[in-house]
Amino acid sequence: MSNFRRVPVGIVGASGYGGVQLVRLLMDHPEVELVYLGGESSAGKQFGELYPHLAHAVAQPIKAVEPDVIAQSCEVIFLSLPNGLACQITPHLLEKGCKVLDLSADYRFRDLATYTNWYGTARSDHATAATAVYGLPELYRDRIAEAQLIGCPGCYPTASLLALSPLLKQGLIVPETAIIDAKSGTSGGGRQAKTNLLLAEADNSLGAYNVVKHRHTPEIEQVCSDLAGHEVTIQFTPHLVPMVRGILATVYATLRDPGLVRDDLITIYKAFYRNSPWVKICEPGIYPQTKWACSSNLCYLGIEVDTRTGRVIVISAIDNLIKGQAGQAIQCMNIMMGWDETLGLPKLGFYP
Amino acid sequence: MSNFRRVPVGIVGASGYGGVQLVRLLMDHPEVELVYLGGESSAGKQFGELYPHLAHAVAQPIKAVEPDVIAQSCEVIFLSLPNGLACQITPHLLEKGCKVLDLSADYRFRDLATYTNWYGTARSDHATAATAVYGLPELYRDRIAEAQLIGCPGCYPTASLLALSPLLKQGLIVPETAIIDAKSGTSGGGRQAKTNLLLAEADNSLGAYNVVKHRHTPEIEQVCSDLAGHEVTIQFTPHLVPMVRGILATVYATLRDPGLVRDDLITIYKAFYRNSPWVKICEPGIYPQTKWACSSNLCYLGIEVDTRTGRVIVISAIDNLIKGQAGQAIQCMNIMMGWDETLGLPKLGFYP
Amino acid sequence: MSNFRRVPVGIVGASGYGGVQLVRLLMDHPEVELVYLGGESSAGKQFGELYPHLAHAVAQPIKAVEPDVIAQSCEVIFLSLPNGLACQITPHLLEKGCKVLDLSADYRFRDLATYTNWYGTARSDHATAATAVYGLPELYRDRIAEAQLIGCPGCYPTASLLALSPLLKQGLIVPETAIIDAKSGTSGGGRQAKTNLLLAEADNSLGAYNVVKHRHTPEIEQVCSDLAGHEVTIQFTPHLVPMVRGILATVYATLRDPGLVRDDLITIYKAFYRNSPWVKICEPGIYPQTKWACSSNLCYLGIEVDTRTGRVIVISAIDNLIKGQAGQAIQCMNIMMGWDETLGLPKLGFYP
Amino acid sequence: MSNFRRVPVGIVGASGYGGVQLVRLLMDHPEVELVYLGGESSAGKQFGELYPHLAHAVAQPIKAVEPDVIAQSCEVIFLSLPNGLACQITPHLLEKGCKVLDLSADYRFRDLATYTNWYGTARSDHATAATAVYGLPELYRDRIAEAQLIGCPGCYPTASLLALSPLLKQGLIVPETAIIDAKSGTSGGGRQAKTNLLLAEADNSLGAYNVVKHRHTPEIEQVCSDLAGHEVTIQFTPHLVPMVRGILATVYATLRDPGLVRDDLITIYKAFYRNSPWVKICEPGIYPQTKWACSSNLCYLGIEVDTRTGRVIVISAIDNLIKGQAGQAIQCMNIMMGWDETLGLPKLGFYP
Repeated sequence: MSNFRRVPVGIVGASGYGGVQLVRLLMDHPEVELVYLGGESSAGKQFGELYPHLAHAVAQPIKAVEPDVIAQSCEVIFLSLPNGLACQITPHLLEKGCKVLDLSADYRFRDLATYTNWYGTARSDHATAATAVYGLPELYRDRIAEAQLIGCPGCYPTASLLALSPLLKQGLIVPETAIIDAKSGTSGGGRQAKTNLLLAEADNSLGAYNVVKHRHTPEIEQVCSDLAGHEVTIQFTPHLVPMVRGILATVYATLRDPGLVRDDLITIYKAFYRNSPWVKICEPGIYPQTKWACSSNLCYLGIEVDTRTGRVIVISAIDNLIKGQAGQAIQCMNIMMGWDETLGLPKLGFYP
Repeated sequence: MSNFRRVPVGIVGASGYGGVQLVRLLMDHPEVELVYLGGESSAGKQFGELYPHLAHAVAQPIKAVEPDVIAQSCEVIFLSLPNGLACQITPHLLEKGCKVLDLSADYRFRDLATYTNWYGTARSDHATAATAVYGLPELYRDRIAEAQLIGCPGCYPTASLLALSPLLKQGLIVPETAIIDAKSGTSGGGRQAKTNLLLAEADNSLGAYNVVKHRHTPEIEQVCSDLAGHEVTIQFTPHLVPMVRGILATVYATLRDPGLVRDDLITIYKAFYRNSPWVKICEPGIYPQTKWACSSNLCYLGIEVDTRTGRVIVISAIDNLIKGQAGQAIQCMNIMMGWDETLGLPKLGFYP
Repeated sequence: MSNFRRVPVGIVGASGYGGVQLVRLLMDHPEVELVYLGGESSAGKQFGELYPHLAHAVAQPIKAVEPDVIAQSCEVIFLSLPNGLACQITPHLLEKGCKVLDLSADYRFRDLATYTNWYGTARSDHATAATAVYGLPELYRDRIAEAQLIGCPGCYPTASLLALSPLLKQGLIVPETAIIDAKSGTSGGGRQAKTNLLLAEADNSLGAYNVVKHRHTPEIEQVCSDLAGHEVTIQFTPHLVPMVRGILATVYATLRDPGLVRDDLITIYKAFYRNSPWVKICEPGIYPQTKWACSSNLCYLGIEVDTRTGRVIVISAIDNLIKGQAGQAIQCMNIMMGWDETLGLPKLGFYP
Repeated sequence: MSNFRRVPVGIVGASGYGGVQLVRLLMDHPEVELVYLGGESSAGKQFGELYPHLAHAVAQPIKAVEPDVIAQSCEVIFLSLPNGLACQITPHLLEKGCKVLDLSADYRFRDLATYTNWYGTARSDHATAATAVYGLPELYRDRIAEAQLIGCPGCYPTASLLALSPLLKQGLIVPETAIIDAKSGTSGGGRQAKTNLLLAEADNSLGAYNVVKHRHTPEIEQVCSDLAGHEVTIQFTPHLVPMVRGILATVYATLRDPGLVRDDLITIYKAFYRNSPWVKICEPGIYPQTKWACSSNLCYLGIEVDTRTGRVIVISAIDNLIKGQAGQAIQCMNIMMGWDETLGLPKLGFYP
């Protein structure tokens, strides 16, 4: 024990929901020490001013974002910033030898033109972006292990891609028939005050938003194209649900082989995720609820075949802030550091 | 004024959520008088024992269900009973001259074999069933006006069919590509105590249920086939949402003509529903929320075209207990009686 | 009918929750016509841009606030503005002959020093304030009938005072033992975006706020002192509840006469509110829920005596935006205009 | 490490919410092994049939309740049964040498006449009951350490007594002025299907229940009398809040010394709970929300003094199923076994 040393890690953008999840989870992680909390607007405040329930547990102040200082104290850095900011400091952090896990969209795209199209910002850091690996461990575990920079997936893509990947990888569906009807709790909108996310507006109501133009679409399509081996266009519709946490993605696609039955697909999914401890395939006739995954890093998949229509329906449930965000980033860190993929992550949610 | 006479109406099955909506709405209706409340298990109780907030307003007791007595006092009868009961008393009520509006599934199907397939009960009242009209006024207004027996639609079919009808009627989509991803508040499950509908279970969670086998599927398909002019199979998936009231149906279908744009469809929908006071078409880029329709008889439709995928997406929002149930039944009664379709029905919801 | 004329009314501050309730309710009112909508920040917008579900029903734009123009077109004006603004335009409107109902705190206080103490703003309009009547019809019906200016009560005071008044008026309790533990839905916080009112923050949680310093305290004390005949200090604690609408006030006080039983008090309450159509006294053993009152102008009161402790407990439930705000203002208008107190107001909520 | 042995523990009544919390928490506990799950109505089922989200994690079936068999396999037994059942098997389990932690009301009362008064059941196991210790570690840590039988507190008494104890123990308040206005999420009502706990009924609503007669009253009074040194009568009113988990108790009492200020009391509370790792005293002006404690074993206390009224107001927030039930039982077990009080219990909730 004498030479046990915790790895120093830091969080830039600690004040949002992604940040507070990271703080909560990293404090419980047995191999790391949280040595740095940084932020822009919240710099100078105590973390307990933002989250009073953690005042007794987190003594650290939030510091200004100075890459040199960060790189001196941290081996691993989590960036939990609005889109367009991570790309300004990441090259510097990488140069100093830090491992970087970015939770924004900045490093999710192989082709930065796609980023610019959907996010409206020009980018000049092509060399850096080219080294980034998309942080979905169930698909890219080996490349994550070798990477220095991870572009962590969005919450919707995580739920959607875990549902679609076995089907696309094995050529079981007609890719262009895929429709993702996704539903999210309102914490996905962040902690900034917005009228449409007020409880008075969003509670006891349900609606679609950003129909045919949500920014997670190209991210889903990039991975689907990868798996299908050709360019794939996907229908993706997000909805806002009156609950705090959780994403449910209901995925529809037409089977190439109308003879496939539910049990076949369950077998295929179980094999596909055999080495993925965070994905659980439900028994026949069981469909997951978001609450099952809540406050854990799990993804539950329920699978059905409609023999009347020839479609497969896959239902995917995650906690948007854990497997859909902070937990998955830590899962990636575990892999990058050569640790067990499950280390320090909550294995079971609380129910009800 | 001297010869003004209110039409005497009655409700069988007044204790459930359908019943209490009918009570609430019929008390406000200017042309009717609520003279009879009946029920099985609740017979003998005061209505105010079941719904204390109405104790001061509804003095009537709930009476046992005796068709002869009902027929003597009521001209119009609403049946709000579990499936399989209405068909036992309806023939008798019709014979006595009553107009009957059944809120259960018993008289929704043209072909009783479909009913027996999906509901598991054999039926012998073919002659009666053959006279029933499906109570969706926006499609069958003229036939409702002539009918003595109405099979009122389910909540999901109402939301789904109002979204799909213009597309099918005018041959704008490939019918078999239609996918309905529907989401309902938990009041759709009724007032019976069920574990999965407890707040502790259903709140802060979301899941699909009865995937590929919900009983509203054949009802939707019957009308779609009618409109398309041939047998149509539809994908329908219901979800349970942590809210009390409201249904949102997100409907996807592939356009036959990829040149159609959103504005074309909005024009077509506005024309289709020109004479339907309860259907409102949203302006371009606006998608309805269930709360908009809450405690009104309105259906809001939002329309989008995805030029990337060639699909139309229609989003339909109703109050499941009003336009999806009791309000629609009253709308049908208005038509049967020759009154204005909007009489006595709430025109605007309360917001927020 | 030929000489029937609707009274022209206007709303200043139509964009908030108070405003949208007024719009909704006044559109249904049989004696008035809504001819003017005004606002500061929203001036120039269509009302339907703020509340898309009303776009088909409200064609009016929101106009800038010009008292002369308002006074020319409106006989009755509702002011639904942040505190401190009504007092700037009210004198002018009164001078022009308008009847004014102010929903803010500006005209609730007999002694403007109290206002200044609690709201932090100096006031010079003492003459105007002296003519204002506190708009709680159940207590001040006669004075409201004669008034030109009404200071409409806050939501908490409405629920609290309807519970306490019979006890204080008749000297049944020791006034200084009164404790009001009040709970409100989050719509009471208005439509401005605030972090603590986000669904993600406020849902599935419950907390007290402004403990010992909520601004509704002096308003409650002013009326209690009035009723008791001497200065009374009241304990008042508000809580934020994860629901949209509704206030529940649980009121505790020590009975002067320990021999009084529940039935005595129920009799006294029924007598006290005999001529108040909006107050309903629950039967023995029945305690109201906020949902009972939701989307109606009703106040339900449940009464209990604890013979072990000698205390009376009164539980009061209202819809904070109707009886607690817009509905009560319209009730006052009805009285000022000599109309029936219940005119144009929703008599029953929707349930569930 | 070679001789490390986990202590075998069992749960009787594993199917309810108390049971599933115990399962979840004991699976994470480093010193125990969960070797037995028992139940009455659920005997013979797999645990995963009741809680599908745990199917992959809990392979055990639920067994019939046979005390001999239980005692053979378990050193420590948690009883999570309806009131009146624990007392039938506990004597037998104790005789066989098991340590027993009962989550029902059966062993909470020193005087079984009180139990019989409030719970309506006669009892003959006086000898056993006399050995039971009330399982509130913050007050009775030393006696718990010596006990073989623990009567674990109810959820409301836990929140209420942690708020009141320092005041009573040190004679700071007039005991008979204490009023507890308590609010609970609906999971406190258990997993049995009851109409009033349906989401459709309980959501977006709030009400009091069991006013002046809730069974947790005598339990609170027993401990308060203990602390005060004489018989004390307490006002206790529970409310049902539209949320899943959490209790907030707002406690009012008149200070004996009107000169005491908030900072004095905060100092006193911090001292009183100095050695209680699960109780956190909020900084001045901070009041806890139930969500802060959610899915942790923490109790947060916020303290205020109203110098106008001479009252202290203490606000207490816990997770009703953890500190209010299963977590507290495990905390007691830790003490009984000589382990650290915090072992295996969640130290921080997830937020939001």
